[in-house]
Amino acid sequence: MQKGKFITVDGVEGAGKSTQINFICEYLKDKGINVILTREPGGTEIGEKIRTMLLSNSTGKMHADTELMLMFAARNEHIQNKIIPVLAQGDWVLSDRFTDASYAYQGGGRGLDIERIAQLENWVLQDFTPDMTLLLDVSVHIGMQRVESRGTKDRIEQEDFDFFNRVRQAYIARAKQYPQRIKLIDAVQSVDDTSRQIQAILNDL
Amino acid sequence: MQKGKFITVDGVEGAGKSTQINFICEYLKDKGINVILTREPGGTEIGEKIRTMLLSNSTGKMHADTELMLMFAARNEHIQNKIIPVLAQGDWVLSDRFTDASYAYQGGGRGLDIERIAQLENWVLQDFTPDMTLLLDVSVHIGMQRVESRGTKDRIEQEDFDFFNRVRQAYIARAKQYPQRIKLIDAVQSVDDTSRQIQAILNDL
Repeated sequence: MQKGKFITVDGVEGAGKSTQINFICEYLKDKGINVILTREPGGTEIGEKIRTMLLSNSTGKMHADTELMLMFAARNEHIQNKIIPVLAQGDWVLSDRFTDASYAYQGGGRGLDIERIAQLENWVLQDFTPDMTLLLDVSVHIGMQRVESRGTKDRIEQEDFDFFNRVRQAYIARAKQYPQRIKLIDAVQSVDDTSRQIQAILNDL
Repeated sequence: MQKGKFITVDGVEGAGKSTQINFICEYLKDKGINVILTREPGGTEIGEKIRTMLLSNSTGKMHADTELMLMFAARNEHIQNKIIPVLAQGDWVLSDRFTDASYAYQGGGRGLDIERIAQLENWVLQDFTPDMTLLLDVSVHIGMQRVESRGTKDRIEQEDFDFFNRVRQAYIARAKQYPQRIKLIDAVQSVDDTSRQIQAILNDL
């Protein structure tokens, strides 16, 4: 059924995802590919409501399992009512974050058991997976500096250095586990150098 | 750890749950038992936000798996941050709906596979279960008449006769499957007769 390609971009806060996502969109459009840009948590009307609940600072303390289930509830809606239909009509989907973020943030960051996350992933996604994931990696120091410079932080961005260090390590572990799908990209280099590296990867897809 | 008792009241719309819940609260208080009244979906700050999303008519069409996951996300928050702490301090918890409703509405009503619901239940609850469930049963005709007379209907109450008939049959099947825990109560009889039957059951607890 799937005719378009599904690409996800992931990484710690401040890794430069937005800039590179814009680059990828323009690059694919120039190649004549129709690409739909979306994001997680969110991407659908219900998903965006769940996003607000997850990221708003007015949301109080939440049990980590609840956070994970809300991420996957929004993801199910995203896959079933947006990603799969778009791919089926032959367009490409580019998502700012996807399932790897659950392993990084709720697994690495919150310390949830990886096997339990895999059970939920299997329940929701079965064998659905991105064709390619671009994982932008920067040190937590650099990432946090960039987030600080933006001003206000959301509920998850409020976490401390150790939290984001665990998130980063979990991302790197995912890249080692799935080297075919996840391309680990050093995002400390200049924006243009990072874009060139991404362009070379996309040309191989 | 659990010292108090956990009682749930379930059934199709219009079965008279609210009236009997008030009766149970008063009856237990008269016996000197501290009982906390709560409800699903809801029961916590986050759970109530999820409830609004699930029941609001302004929420558009939602994939059935998303609906089920949101129910269980709210349930996890409810169990971890309200029910378990209350039971641990020795008080009782009385919940207007609980997991049986997911089997009835998303299983019977929406047609989701029972085994898939059981996987999510196991993921969230493990072996946590109510001490007793009072299942109030009325025909769908009577139930729907009572709902109509209340005026406005929420997103799920908008469903048709066949939907609520499948919900009712799924509830009855649950009662047959778990006869020790689930007490099937004919709620077509008078309010007082129903209350007397419930009182006799509570005295055996």
